[in-house]
Amino acid sequence: MLNEKLLRIYQQAGVDALYIESDFIRRYLSGYYATDGCIILDGESCKFIVDLRYFEAAEKALRGTCVEAVEGTIITANELLKKYHTIGVPYPYTDLERAEALKSMGLQLKDCMPALKAAMLIKTDEELSLLQNACDIAEDALLALMPQLKEGMTERDANALLEYEMHKFGADCPSFATILAFGPNGSVPHHETGDSKLKFGDIVLIDFGCKVKGYCSDCTRTFLYGDDGKHGEFKKAYAEVLKAHELVKEKLVAGMTGREADEIARASLRAAGLDKYFTHSLGHGIGLLIHEFPRLTPKSDEVIENGMVFSDEPGVYLAGEYGIRIEDSCYMKDGRTHSFMHKTDRNLIIL
Amino acid sequence: MLNEKLLRIYQQAGVDALYIESDFIRRYLSGYYATDGCIILDGESCKFIVDLRYFEAAEKALRGTCVEAVEGTIITANELLKKYHTIGVPYPYTDLERAEALKSMGLQLKDCMPALKAAMLIKTDEELSLLQNACDIAEDALLALMPQLKEGMTERDANALLEYEMHKFGADCPSFATILAFGPNGSVPHHETGDSKLKFGDIVLIDFGCKVKGYCSDCTRTFLYGDDGKHGEFKKAYAEVLKAHELVKEKLVAGMTGREADEIARASLRAAGLDKYFTHSLGHGIGLLIHEFPRLTPKSDEVIENGMVFSDEPGVYLAGEYGIRIEDSCYMKDGRTHSFMHKTDRNLIIL
Repeated sequence: MLNEKLLRIYQQAGVDALYIESDFIRRYLSGYYATDGCIILDGESCKFIVDLRYFEAAEKALRGTCVEAVEGTIITANELLKKYHTIGVPYPYTDLERAEALKSMGLQLKDCMPALKAAMLIKTDEELSLLQNACDIAEDALLALMPQLKEGMTERDANALLEYEMHKFGADCPSFATILAFGPNGSVPHHETGDSKLKFGDIVLIDFGCKVKGYCSDCTRTFLYGDDGKHGEFKKAYAEVLKAHELVKEKLVAGMTGREADEIARASLRAAGLDKYFTHSLGHGIGLLIHEFPRLTPKSDEVIENGMVFSDEPGVYLAGEYGIRIEDSCYMKDGRTHSFMHKTDRNLIIL
Repeated sequence: MLNEKLLRIYQQAGVDALYIESDFIRRYLSGYYATDGCIILDGESCKFIVDLRYFEAAEKALRGTCVEAVEGTIITANELLKKYHTIGVPYPYTDLERAEALKSMGLQLKDCMPALKAAMLIKTDEELSLLQNACDIAEDALLALMPQLKEGMTERDANALLEYEMHKFGADCPSFATILAFGPNGSVPHHETGDSKLKFGDIVLIDFGCKVKGYCSDCTRTFLYGDDGKHGEFKKAYAEVLKAHELVKEKLVAGMTGREADEIARASLRAAGLDKYFTHSLGHGIGLLIHEFPRLTPKSDEVIENGMVFSDEPGVYLAGEYGIRIEDSCYMKDGRTHSFMHKTDRNLIIL
């Protein structure tokens, strides 16, 4: 018998069966991860088809769940799909080659992403707990990195250490390519971590995160590596970014749209004359993907509800001078915004 | 004016324009990497469309090449595509949602992957040089790891160190999730790196690699962490796997098929009565993807030619006892097989 989650997704999709190849959706439906494989979910059963390499592990992992491990390949999947007429595939995560092959088997395709998205948007307590783990590890790693930062160290070196610490604390892997910027490099919101060396008085901006059982954390901290007394303007701007960041946590309540959320931070920076330097949007959903729904942007009509997880990351960037971004991974619960991050200080740190 | 590579791909694709969103293909065509963006290549020009976040970096990186940076988003791309009738998209790397949107704009789609694949299969000297870098870094990292291995260390700990060393030596990131197995865990070809602790006498199997400017290395080494005198059978099998591995380098010449390549190793293991424990295929192509063409499998008709890059990775796995795999990243040049790997010993190492 299917569990409630799978049954609801199946019913909402309105198809004979869902067919999923995408790895993160397979993980979402089954709780099990394999590099390869596919899932067929109909109203009666949910089959996870994996080849010989993964079958034993899959069978063990899925024992006691409503998902059945089936040994096989894509040929097996094609055989099993023959009895259906219309199948749901997630259009954004289905490649055109496979889609054409399915159609040539006489199958009608329908996008099941809306049904999946509706379910994936609202995190269960178990998912929130994994996200909390991923956030804890990210913060622990940053705290372990800070005292190891030394003058002359490159951005790459510092990132190597940070990722090492995340692994050590139990992360599967980074949740995206770390942005680690020294000095003026921070003024490029998507700076590519490189060979710049750390100098006394540098502003350090680190945007990073890790995965735990697939679930992502996302965090940004900006701090000073020593105070050379030349950062008066930066410090004022930092205080304004922090104010915008904290205001979101205070004022963003369930039922608001992504646009309204974004406007909380943007209005605060506008009052300080800094909104023109806030060149991106406030945040994005976080889950098994580092960027998912809801979007917290000036154009987003998406409504933020209990169980949703998103970043709160206002920033201010002065080209060639400095960049500031303060980001927490947050969740909506009991109508209010809560942060997953409790270990690192958001007040300006001077190392 | 387009360079020869882009012109040839355009002509082979037989379309009005190629439209590419896939990040590794964008990198292949332009030499430039950005998380987001798309490329439109017609007979006259090649435009790399990136949004404001990346535009400055893209313009700088593409200066002096035949690729033009254009600031914009998917809306810009849609505008530019209006003048074409048939566009080529790589079917395996185009999602169905985007494909449907392109079709609804009145565009005819055609798969341009065959034209791209034909070009990407044969590596240029510059690509071979990047692959060599990625292989050098992987080997340097392994050599740096070995003396740091200590009894009681977990697979995760060892992997954290290995990835740290790869970063330090200049890698962008790992080329895939490292398989790091202590003791009997090595008998699962796709073991998931976990919390098992290293013991004296353990067999250690490490399948790992890294990326340099997107190009991947792939290497496996199996060695002993101390010799407890209980590994007679393992040592015999190791010698046979090594023999099969070296035979491939000696006998695999240009013009052979993937099947013939696989059979070199398989026949050698068959003569030793070990072929039934060689449960995967000999190898796979390597490039901007960790698994690409040619395939060196018992069923592959693909012909291996000069400029192709592939793994040579025979293995022997005795469930619950031990696993052995010896893998080099190799290339075909002047009709013969050459290894990229010259730093680590393939003879059995006992730490």
